[in-house]
Amino acid sequence: MIEDAAKKTIKILDQNGIVLNKNERNHIEVVDFGLNQLEKQGLQIIVYENNDRYCAKELVLFSNQTCPEHSHPNVGEEEGKMETFRCRAGKVWLYLEGESSERIQAKIPKGSEDYYTVFHEIELNPGDQFTIPPDTLHWFQAGEEGAIISEFSSTSRDEFDIFTDPSIQRV
Amino acid sequence: MIEDAAKKTIKILDQNGIVLNKNERNHIEVVDFGLNQLEKQGLQIIVYENNDRYCAKELVLFSNQTCPEHSHPNVGEEEGKMETFRCRAGKVWLYLEGESSERIQAKIPKGSEDYYTVFHEIELNPGDQFTIPPDTLHWFQAGEEGAIISEFSSTSRDEFDIFTDPSIQRV
Repeated sequence: MIEDAAKKTIKILDQNGIVLNKNERNHIEVVDFGLNQLEKQGLQIIVYENNDRYCAKELVLFSNQTCPEHSHPNVGEEEGKMETFRCRAGKVWLYLEGESSERIQAKIPKGSEDYYTVFHEIELNPGDQFTIPPDTLHWFQAGEEGAIISEFSSTSRDEFDIFTDPSIQRV
Repeated sequence: MIEDAAKKTIKILDQNGIVLNKNERNHIEVVDFGLNQLEKQGLQIIVYENNDRYCAKELVLFSNQTCPEHSHPNVGEEEGKMETFRCRAGKVWLYLEGESSERIQAKIPKGSEDYYTVFHEIELNPGDQFTIPPDTLHWFQAGEEGAIISEFSSTSRDEFDIFTDPSIQRV
């Protein structure tokens, strides 16, 4: 299933004119957050660069796929990860702390309702972008047609991410 | 001429499936470095994000257009800008400090030969990327078909850039 998801990811990027090199094609990160329901809660990642100053990734979401709620906390004296999501293709609904939107467009994954707690909605279409401040709860879901997001950020240290769902393990 | 170059930039990005929002379309940075020979020595830039932690831009080069030699020096206690060039379309020859390549593929802009001094060649085709260390002289030129480069970097502070050509002013 991981291999199928990796192939599907490459195909989606190909169709949208985003070229990966051979090494990247062989190292698509398929993340199911240990929940074993990748199509509902999961994310596909290509890490272009992650050094001690900045990070850049391509994120691919399948149709209605959701990245579960989490935050990037401060680590020691260093501020938590700050990240800019730029929608390249498809549609993304991003939710973060702040005033709840009256009606949200995403569908919260069934059985996980308790672990989605922030509902300030930002809709991102191709060419739109939004910067998520450090240490801020957020989650996001693709529309029907899936989505490609370029993520520009400070250094990525996934092992410090805090997920609302206690059963999630991000390795 | 600036307006024509901006329009051409938008067209190239459109043709390659890179979507800009309205504000970005209205703020294409067309840089001729004060040399008044944009087609030979110049660069078109879309700044997606530049904050005190990271920066992301799209760089567009027309056919055989050259970005002149420069470095990003350390500023006070902060290390100079570090940047990753990812070729999205076309072809780029990047030159930086280090052992000179036996034969370089770029053509040095006529009349400016004195201001190109580093010749370690890196060829970037779509999907290839290279990270330029801080405080390192570099220049780059697109191939015949032009190029689109995604630049991921630490904070951009153009006003501190040092150009080899003393007549260049980067505002």
